[in-house]
Amino acid sequence: MTTLDLPGLLTDPATLENLSHDEAEWAPAGTPAAAFRPQSTEDVQDAVKACAANGVPIVPRGAGTGLSGGANATDGCLVLDLSRMNRIIEIDAENLLAVVQPGVVNDDLKKAVAAQGLWYPPDPASSPWSTIGGNVATNAGGLCCLKYGVTRDYVLGLEVVMGGPVSYGTAVKLGRRTNKGVAGYDLTSLLVGSEGTLGVVTEITLRLRPAPRPPATVVGAFASLVDAGQAVALSTRRGLQPAALELIDRACLQAVEDWKHLGIEPDTEAMLLARAETPEDADGLVAAFTDAGAAWTERSTDSAEAEALFAARRLTYPALERLGPLLTEDVCVPRSAIPVMLARIEEIGTRHGVQIATIAHAGDGNLHPLLITPPGDDNARIAAQAAFEDIITEALALGGTVTGEHGVGLLKRDGMIRELGPDVCSLQQSVKHTLDPLNLFNPGKA
Amino acid sequence: MTTLDLPGLLTDPATLENLSHDEAEWAPAGTPAAAFRPQSTEDVQDAVKACAANGVPIVPRGAGTGLSGGANATDGCLVLDLSRMNRIIEIDAENLLAVVQPGVVNDDLKKAVAAQGLWYPPDPASSPWSTIGGNVATNAGGLCCLKYGVTRDYVLGLEVVMGGPVSYGTAVKLGRRTNKGVAGYDLTSLLVGSEGTLGVVTEITLRLRPAPRPPATVVGAFASLVDAGQAVALSTRRGLQPAALELIDRACLQAVEDWKHLGIEPDTEAMLLARAETPEDADGLVAAFTDAGAAWTERSTDSAEAEALFAARRLTYPALERLGPLLTEDVCVPRSAIPVMLARIEEIGTRHGVQIATIAHAGDGNLHPLLITPPGDDNARIAAQAAFEDIITEALALGGTVTGEHGVGLLKRDGMIRELGPDVCSLQQSVKHTLDPLNLFNPGKA
Repeated sequence: MTTLDLPGLLTDPATLENLSHDEAEWAPAGTPAAAFRPQSTEDVQDAVKACAANGVPIVPRGAGTGLSGGANATDGCLVLDLSRMNRIIEIDAENLLAVVQPGVVNDDLKKAVAAQGLWYPPDPASSPWSTIGGNVATNAGGLCCLKYGVTRDYVLGLEVVMGGPVSYGTAVKLGRRTNKGVAGYDLTSLLVGSEGTLGVVTEITLRLRPAPRPPATVVGAFASLVDAGQAVALSTRRGLQPAALELIDRACLQAVEDWKHLGIEPDTEAMLLARAETPEDADGLVAAFTDAGAAWTERSTDSAEAEALFAARRLTYPALERLGPLLTEDVCVPRSAIPVMLARIEEIGTRHGVQIATIAHAGDGNLHPLLITPPGDDNARIAAQAAFEDIITEALALGGTVTGEHGVGLLKRDGMIRELGPDVCSLQQSVKHTLDPLNLFNPGKA
Repeated sequence: MTTLDLPGLLTDPATLENLSHDEAEWAPAGTPAAAFRPQSTEDVQDAVKACAANGVPIVPRGAGTGLSGGANATDGCLVLDLSRMNRIIEIDAENLLAVVQPGVVNDDLKKAVAAQGLWYPPDPASSPWSTIGGNVATNAGGLCCLKYGVTRDYVLGLEVVMGGPVSYGTAVKLGRRTNKGVAGYDLTSLLVGSEGTLGVVTEITLRLRPAPRPPATVVGAFASLVDAGQAVALSTRRGLQPAALELIDRACLQAVEDWKHLGIEPDTEAMLLARAETPEDADGLVAAFTDAGAAWTERSTDSAEAEALFAARRLTYPALERLGPLLTEDVCVPRSAIPVMLARIEEIGTRHGVQIATIAHAGDGNLHPLLITPPGDDNARIAAQAAFEDIITEALALGGTVTGEHGVGLLKRDGMIRELGPDVCSLQQSVKHTLDPLNLFNPGKA
């Protein structure tokens, strides 16, 4: 039961259960007191005011596609489901910007701006379902951030319902509509990636780009991970700028092959897939892959082929999900450390008896080891969780970070504390305490 | 006199006078108690501890090329001159990053990384003299940020000597060495552009890029500002991506012509200068300029010519300085508002009887009206200051910002308060108060 007086408050258990967690299957989720689906900034303000008056924590959420538990409910909270605030308010082609509500789905925005010859680059794998608000909360990345940057690089301004120094429920406008601006501290960048812990984002002003050229795909198959790592290093050294440079290891390839029979050679230890936006980059990538010892390379000649060659990458996740629940890791290391990190992941898998398949945004040094557990096997779950922590430890030892793009949520809290150390954590906590003294916004996260 | 006990403390009046202001000629400067030139992070820590113990405010500075008074002394402060901390600690070509001390001069870093085929893009006009630390403090822009972004986009990590939640004099490491990372609030971005008000930056980890292709220059001469604005809009609409797109108005051209006799036609109201990095962009810019009604266009055929065609842009500032002290404005408007803003600047000049020449990073909507006053004419100074405020008012009315890239410092404090409004100012102040409760770091700025 709840004391909140909001129109249309949802309290039936099935709905609440549905809205109480994201896709981080292994993160704990509490039981919300209620859920609310605001239609406007004013609705969000009312909800925040009511929660502040009653001491009810607020857990904002978009589509719930997160992989860290950032949108998981805490006991007795109000879940603010922002998916109904899904209006594209404005597309300004003259000034290359869009203004959207947080519930707009990433791909819906992409389609709407493409109709005007424009492009919104951030492309998390969840883009068919995930919302811009969720992308902003986690500072989502994706494939093309290698060349085009992450969500933060596209957020010019935000409307946020905040508390603390302003009274709870105040809507403030942060940032700007201009391409440049240095008036005051960059609170916009502070809010991006803050996982709903500093306020509720109700409107987002996004930078757009002109539509990119249709890319060519360049594929290389390698007999060793070290060769593939060498190919990435050569591409970087030679100044090539692919829009994406993805690595898939043998475990991924095997799962795809077992499922779809694409004819991937069994002695391929790693495959690199690159998107090249100029003929020079495509030539350069073929040469770099070859010089690094690729068993074979292939290069698309048209858009259909370019898409087809990326099939192995797209099929990896569903192919692996067939094998059991996946625990998705998200570490990022300096890109030169990719081969070492891949070797350590393999050792960790062997040591814990856990099957680990790894896809990586190799050009960025961002690895997603996917830990597979047979359904219902509790010991396997425990082993996988131990391997998950060991991967974090190794990433930190190599000068990396515990989360490249998925966010801290619940799964990476301990890792974050290890990464940042006590001084920086204390700065972080003081910022949180200043901007949310009641600890009302998504408490216990990030 | 000062109670600070630091080795090598500077107290002679001539040195202090020299270190008490930047190049914002019209901003007030106080008298420092002393100055100190740290050689290391430890020196900075000692200075901050001593200042905290004695309640002495700290004004950090680099080369003092700022245009907003951000480095101006306050009475009784310690000036921390970081220009001796000018070591390039590391250039990591594999991971496209550099680690530098704050006193490294922008062009020195550019040269050092160019020797390895790499590039550090941010290019403020002050790059031959200004330091990376100063660039970080103001989030400096420049010409090529149109395509390549501003200083914040290149700062991966910072070492900062801070206070508040950590004891004054603690050196903390913010950010990371990896290309992506979302662990915790983005305090790195918060510190960039904070103008020394949250701590003293002692080390900077910067993202680098591969060396760009040698650009071609495309020039267009226009008989009206509206035509030039139209050319900018057409270039944007057609998806062209010049690395720079600069506008120079008639007053600038006249000053350059009077000085250097380049043969600029007297009926040219505005000139656009663009840097194109692909032949397609060069073709496209010529076509867009022509379609918008350019009286003539020209396109360089080699690098020497490309540089030569940019001469008018480079000569503008020195040509105008010959006419008297300059008050440099720095407003940014949505790029579609450039023609309207230029017309309003002209009206303001006429109304106040002030000669105003404008250069603009037109592709970004960032304008630098330069207000010229005859030396020693006090009434002209007063008129120029009134015009300066009116330009800010008009920029805000057009949805712009009071400072695109030079910073708030002292000259834009009132403007910033008008732009942000009381709620956002209160959030800003609370962040400042949390991270610097003693108000020790560059008090009264930003």
